[in-house]
Amino acid sequence: MTDTFAALDTATGLALTDGQRAGLHELYRHLHAHPELSMQEHHTAELIERQLDGLGIENFRCGGTGVVGVLRNGDGPVVGFRADTDGLPIQEDTGLDYASTATGTLPDGTEVPVMHGCGHDTHTAVLLTVARMFAEAREAWAGTLVLIFQPGEETAAGAAAMVADGLWDRAPKPEIIYGQHVMPGRAGTVSLSVGSAMAMADSLKVTVHGRQSHGSQPQDSIDPVVLGAHMVVRLQTIVSRELDPRQAAVVTVGTFHGGLKENIIPASAEFTLNIRTFDNGVRERVLAAVRRIISAEAAASGAPEPEIEELYTFPACYNEPAEAEALAGAFRDAIGPDAVSVVPPLMGSEDFGHLASAIGVPAVYWMFGGHSDEVIDGDSPVPMNHSPFFAPVMEPTLSTGVKAAVAALQGRLGR
Amino acid sequence: MTDTFAALDTATGLALTDGQRAGLHELYRHLHAHPELSMQEHHTAELIERQLDGLGIENFRCGGTGVVGVLRNGDGPVVGFRADTDGLPIQEDTGLDYASTATGTLPDGTEVPVMHGCGHDTHTAVLLTVARMFAEAREAWAGTLVLIFQPGEETAAGAAAMVADGLWDRAPKPEIIYGQHVMPGRAGTVSLSVGSAMAMADSLKVTVHGRQSHGSQPQDSIDPVVLGAHMVVRLQTIVSRELDPRQAAVVTVGTFHGGLKENIIPASAEFTLNIRTFDNGVRERVLAAVRRIISAEAAASGAPEPEIEELYTFPACYNEPAEAEALAGAFRDAIGPDAVSVVPPLMGSEDFGHLASAIGVPAVYWMFGGHSDEVIDGDSPVPMNHSPFFAPVMEPTLSTGVKAAVAALQGRLGR
Amino acid sequence: MTDTFAALDTATGLALTDGQRAGLHELYRHLHAHPELSMQEHHTAELIERQLDGLGIENFRCGGTGVVGVLRNGDGPVVGFRADTDGLPIQEDTGLDYASTATGTLPDGTEVPVMHGCGHDTHTAVLLTVARMFAEAREAWAGTLVLIFQPGEETAAGAAAMVADGLWDRAPKPEIIYGQHVMPGRAGTVSLSVGSAMAMADSLKVTVHGRQSHGSQPQDSIDPVVLGAHMVVRLQTIVSRELDPRQAAVVTVGTFHGGLKENIIPASAEFTLNIRTFDNGVRERVLAAVRRIISAEAAASGAPEPEIEELYTFPACYNEPAEAEALAGAFRDAIGPDAVSVVPPLMGSEDFGHLASAIGVPAVYWMFGGHSDEVIDGDSPVPMNHSPFFAPVMEPTLSTGVKAAVAALQGRLGR
Amino acid sequence: MTDTFAALDTATGLALTDGQRAGLHELYRHLHAHPELSMQEHHTAELIERQLDGLGIENFRCGGTGVVGVLRNGDGPVVGFRADTDGLPIQEDTGLDYASTATGTLPDGTEVPVMHGCGHDTHTAVLLTVARMFAEAREAWAGTLVLIFQPGEETAAGAAAMVADGLWDRAPKPEIIYGQHVMPGRAGTVSLSVGSAMAMADSLKVTVHGRQSHGSQPQDSIDPVVLGAHMVVRLQTIVSRELDPRQAAVVTVGTFHGGLKENIIPASAEFTLNIRTFDNGVRERVLAAVRRIISAEAAASGAPEPEIEELYTFPACYNEPAEAEALAGAFRDAIGPDAVSVVPPLMGSEDFGHLASAIGVPAVYWMFGGHSDEVIDGDSPVPMNHSPFFAPVMEPTLSTGVKAAVAALQGRLGR
Repeated sequence: MTDTFAALDTATGLALTDGQRAGLHELYRHLHAHPELSMQEHHTAELIERQLDGLGIENFRCGGTGVVGVLRNGDGPVVGFRADTDGLPIQEDTGLDYASTATGTLPDGTEVPVMHGCGHDTHTAVLLTVARMFAEAREAWAGTLVLIFQPGEETAAGAAAMVADGLWDRAPKPEIIYGQHVMPGRAGTVSLSVGSAMAMADSLKVTVHGRQSHGSQPQDSIDPVVLGAHMVVRLQTIVSRELDPRQAAVVTVGTFHGGLKENIIPASAEFTLNIRTFDNGVRERVLAAVRRIISAEAAASGAPEPEIEELYTFPACYNEPAEAEALAGAFRDAIGPDAVSVVPPLMGSEDFGHLASAIGVPAVYWMFGGHSDEVIDGDSPVPMNHSPFFAPVMEPTLSTGVKAAVAALQGRLGR
Repeated sequence: MTDTFAALDTATGLALTDGQRAGLHELYRHLHAHPELSMQEHHTAELIERQLDGLGIENFRCGGTGVVGVLRNGDGPVVGFRADTDGLPIQEDTGLDYASTATGTLPDGTEVPVMHGCGHDTHTAVLLTVARMFAEAREAWAGTLVLIFQPGEETAAGAAAMVADGLWDRAPKPEIIYGQHVMPGRAGTVSLSVGSAMAMADSLKVTVHGRQSHGSQPQDSIDPVVLGAHMVVRLQTIVSRELDPRQAAVVTVGTFHGGLKENIIPASAEFTLNIRTFDNGVRERVLAAVRRIISAEAAASGAPEPEIEELYTFPACYNEPAEAEALAGAFRDAIGPDAVSVVPPLMGSEDFGHLASAIGVPAVYWMFGGHSDEVIDGDSPVPMNHSPFFAPVMEPTLSTGVKAAVAALQGRLGR
Repeated sequence: MTDTFAALDTATGLALTDGQRAGLHELYRHLHAHPELSMQEHHTAELIERQLDGLGIENFRCGGTGVVGVLRNGDGPVVGFRADTDGLPIQEDTGLDYASTATGTLPDGTEVPVMHGCGHDTHTAVLLTVARMFAEAREAWAGTLVLIFQPGEETAAGAAAMVADGLWDRAPKPEIIYGQHVMPGRAGTVSLSVGSAMAMADSLKVTVHGRQSHGSQPQDSIDPVVLGAHMVVRLQTIVSRELDPRQAAVVTVGTFHGGLKENIIPASAEFTLNIRTFDNGVRERVLAAVRRIISAEAAASGAPEPEIEELYTFPACYNEPAEAEALAGAFRDAIGPDAVSVVPPLMGSEDFGHLASAIGVPAVYWMFGGHSDEVIDGDSPVPMNHSPFFAPVMEPTLSTGVKAAVAALQGRLGR
Repeated sequence: MTDTFAALDTATGLALTDGQRAGLHELYRHLHAHPELSMQEHHTAELIERQLDGLGIENFRCGGTGVVGVLRNGDGPVVGFRADTDGLPIQEDTGLDYASTATGTLPDGTEVPVMHGCGHDTHTAVLLTVARMFAEAREAWAGTLVLIFQPGEETAAGAAAMVADGLWDRAPKPEIIYGQHVMPGRAGTVSLSVGSAMAMADSLKVTVHGRQSHGSQPQDSIDPVVLGAHMVVRLQTIVSRELDPRQAAVVTVGTFHGGLKENIIPASAEFTLNIRTFDNGVRERVLAAVRRIISAEAAASGAPEPEIEELYTFPACYNEPAEAEALAGAFRDAIGPDAVSVVPPLMGSEDFGHLASAIGVPAVYWMFGGHSDEVIDGDSPVPMNHSPFFAPVMEPTLSTGVKAAVAALQGRLGR
């Protein structure tokens, strides 16, 4: 057995060789040090293309900075696996020797520091390594593996861009798509939900129009601050009074801005909303209630109809229950029975689900832990995704991601 | 000069004789002991008729239990004077030897104790005495005195009933109408406002329709308690944000009732509003805002349009400024310079103004104090009108009422 | 096989004989026609005692109108089964020939009509019949069956009263307690939850103290209607902002009452709250937030501390997961695989759980349907529990209740 | 009579000569074209000093950029007159040939355009001209005229700065202080109030501290946007429920800012308040209620105590009634009976009153109109103070300001 060959493992079929692991670590360090902003992952895409080319895997650009690899290995099922590739406008503060010093330019022209603060670098490095493992052990499996390196997950733009760019016209249609995310759990563990896995998210921007007046003359004004405050207060009743209490939903007003001077009633105010739901009926009910309340509260003030702009929508992330339960079993076999847990859905959001729902196939998405025992069991708060201090420990984080991915794929493609 | 004859007084023209004062006190004690509810002042009306008949003053019934006396004394101005006659559904607790033990029946059939808790007995006794003085001193004046004994002031029904019953078709039209009210001020003093004297009042009843559901299933309900609470909260912005701060207005939600059981979301709730304004434009703005807010808040809940019932309206009580200022001077002459004060308007309401506005003539309405020095200067709270303890001291309260009325009338009718 | 002997059934071990079914129907008709109010179930208790005596089952009174039967049959497990016995103050409107014409007297002295509007008559008739079956087929089982006929479920008083009256000092302690409830589902079906089965409920009464004033003089008042409205509005934020969205909770303000007259700001207002939760931590968080908000809103108005009275508490109703899953399997065997469903927990409440939690043993509570196919599949709304039209069809409702109970008990006690 | 000598006018004692008028216009054009920001009126102060020096009037700097001139003319009363000198950070858009192109630097370092958008240039030009008139007509009067050129009225800093810098230790104490302001009324008219003239103003900045969390996890947050919205809503009840409706008061929330991202619940929010009152008792009641509500609402959210920063306070501007009534008469004589009106107080604010209250002497402040008949009677909205279009017509605006000032001073100082 050489370090470039992955021997068959009785449990998972494919095991990471020392060389593959070294390559995985090198890839990860490089990606972590060179993050790029959403939909601007140009160098990352080129690196992925070079890697796939080097493995002899056919590939094409899709959705701008997305890359799709198609690894064909005779007759058999077609299975998709997705990794997202984008970083975040955060100033890294991890102190790692491979910490990012990169910068980027936001759509509004602002120059910002960039960091892989959500761990997408682990997803990409793992999927490239899995591609290598499958490319180097063709005797261990049969079928087609569709490797989806998706840009722009943070802005909910990437999955939609790939689908719109003809992803499923150009790549073989898989019977299922897998994906995974590193989380602030214990490295070496994996968790997944049966059914809903992550929430849908809708973000709206509301512009409330009033009428300006001097602060001493409210009678000449329509006060958009008071109006907006009533909207914020009234929106609370959607979750408290309009939904089945057993249905999870969140309506958050994340920002509210109005007025420049304490003694001037401003002409307008604006606020943004973030809405989380799991169920389509609940989602529609909440969105309708938001619009109804905003419109009616404006009427209560005698104000013009407010403007409501849809900022973005994250689709459902739903784990087909039978598939998820089967996968939980496969993970227990591959990673260890105590390392796998079935958990309630997360209120966070993902655009992963769009890749599968666009062609009506099932999908499963799971989490793997990224923190060392010292961090998990220590006294300090555990750094969360999007924190400047979010720094997954390389091992056993990365090889657990590999094991989970291989276990999922082998269940479909293994000989 | 006998005690039945009112000699000319250099200051006021007419002065109360001992006999008149004794009659005044006897009348007052009788009226106080025998109060009747609004629009049910049958015995009071008969007593007034007997008194006017006894003085040879022509009179007629008007507006059910209203009585109008017309005392004609040759050519000269026609002047009106109004006293209201009704009591209140209050259990008297004054301990007076002439306290009321009367009962009455409310429109809904409830049997209730009745008390002259607002002092209308002083108004009636004084006006009957003034009628006697003018009837007995015809040489001191010329013209026509229209004596208006009005029922149902407390329910805003009486003035409208008299006008609707042809008051000004049947009685000579006065060039001005006077009226007065006993208040919790120092007996012997008089106060009046220049311009607005008392507020307009509008009372509304709002029925909020929701949808009933079990308390554990808000998703099936439209919660009328939460909706009504938002209406109450939102109505606060009318006074705080929609009016010129220098314009007085009140929007009070005096009652709110909804629900029978803590674990049932009820089908409806109802609340009542009392609105006070001085200016017609402000009144219209407030009423429109109340309707706008109630309708829009229902829309915000997805509820049916609420019902708004107008319970009653008290008209403006406006003292023609020039007349009021002249009268303030006359009062200073008649009662004493320190006994008369010009005061801001009261937020309380009266239907007196309707009698004059119905024919477009000016009116002046003033207050006379009813409490002894001991009560005013004592440590205990001064009993207010409508209190079970409201007990004007007979003198100098009643004779001050007489002096003020005579001063006002003499200014017009005096020879 | 005779009609007085229950032959062993291969599926359930014990089957209802024709005679037992006839007795079941007769018992049900009698109980339905003679409902009694909570904690006043005197005749019902006597009937139960007579039935148990007739079956030779030792029994004792417990908690006033509660009855406990202990059916001993040699060595073996001890298992409890509970039926509740009380009716509701509802005027029955079912048109049944055995409809109730009974009346009762509420604690406040009010005479009211009484109806078995929640179907507790089915629970009692079924448990008495099950008792008969087990008494008449001693060869089919071994152990001890504790039959708990509990009064006062509707007022959350009965389970607590029985425990306080020494239930578990006087009866053998069971290893598990079962209970069931008829619901507006299809007759012949059974449903149960794994884990939480019904919500905890807490009801509170809040008295808001303000300061009375005339409606035209808010400056002298502390307005309890406006204050109470702000409390109602602010309470919405508990569910919308303070809880994990995936945790079910309800905070309902079922009643709000304040004020007698539209132009008087009242001295106080009062409202009642009903709170539903499944998790003890959530319950404590909600109750603390309710108290925090009510106290702080009073402070915001400069009002005295409101009074909060605890009206009653319904405990958790939790189905031990392993037991519930086993029972679901037993039901599928006994009643049919399509007749059994596992459902999410209900937001409704029950005091059943208190009987088991008082001694730290597990419990399982399930539902059986009570409506005919015509009712379920028809166009009219299905009558719910507590409706004047709630009328379970006798069969297959009652025999399904028997089958489920027997299946549960046989699983423990069957030879 | 030469054009440099002001002849005695039978009405006012002193009349503007052609030369004085020409000088007035030249001064005005210069000042208008060269506005300076509050407390930075360096060139304006130097210009005033040069003018006073030229007239031989002793003068000193006071309060940074304030200038005080003392014109002594033998025995007699000491009378003060104040003009304010600062401009505003507004981009002038009047199209005047003498429009400002000046810029200035705000305390936070921002470079901004500057405009005499409130008309303080008219005040300064008029007072310098009045100084010249009195200096050139010493035979017409006797006593001492204290000319107060005050900086920083817009920021409420200037009057306090002058008093703190020893104004009344260094200048003779006047028996009364006058001041005036150009307003959007008809040029040639003057108006004043008897008693309260302008409102007190208090500005506060409130920082609401919550606890940050992801928008999908409200349970980990204390939401400062929802909390701040409840504060804004609750503050409305101060005006609507806590004050005598006949007392004017305004509580305006001019700004509200919180949050950077729609899906993050921020750690804090801040808003600013502007409060207007006329009566000290009302002011104290409002300020106490604001603090009470803000503190209690934070408690209702379980949030830390918010920070409340006092931004600035404008003192009362109260016209001693007897003085104001006398002055109204003098104005009618000097300017014409139809050109003078007595008006209700304005809700706007001024720090003028502080100059007089600091030494307990009376003050009177009046308004003079600045718009042409075409502007006043036209169809377009009349430009208000602080508008980029605010452009007083030079005449008769300026000479009416002079006439009013001379009339007031002559009433005290005239021989």
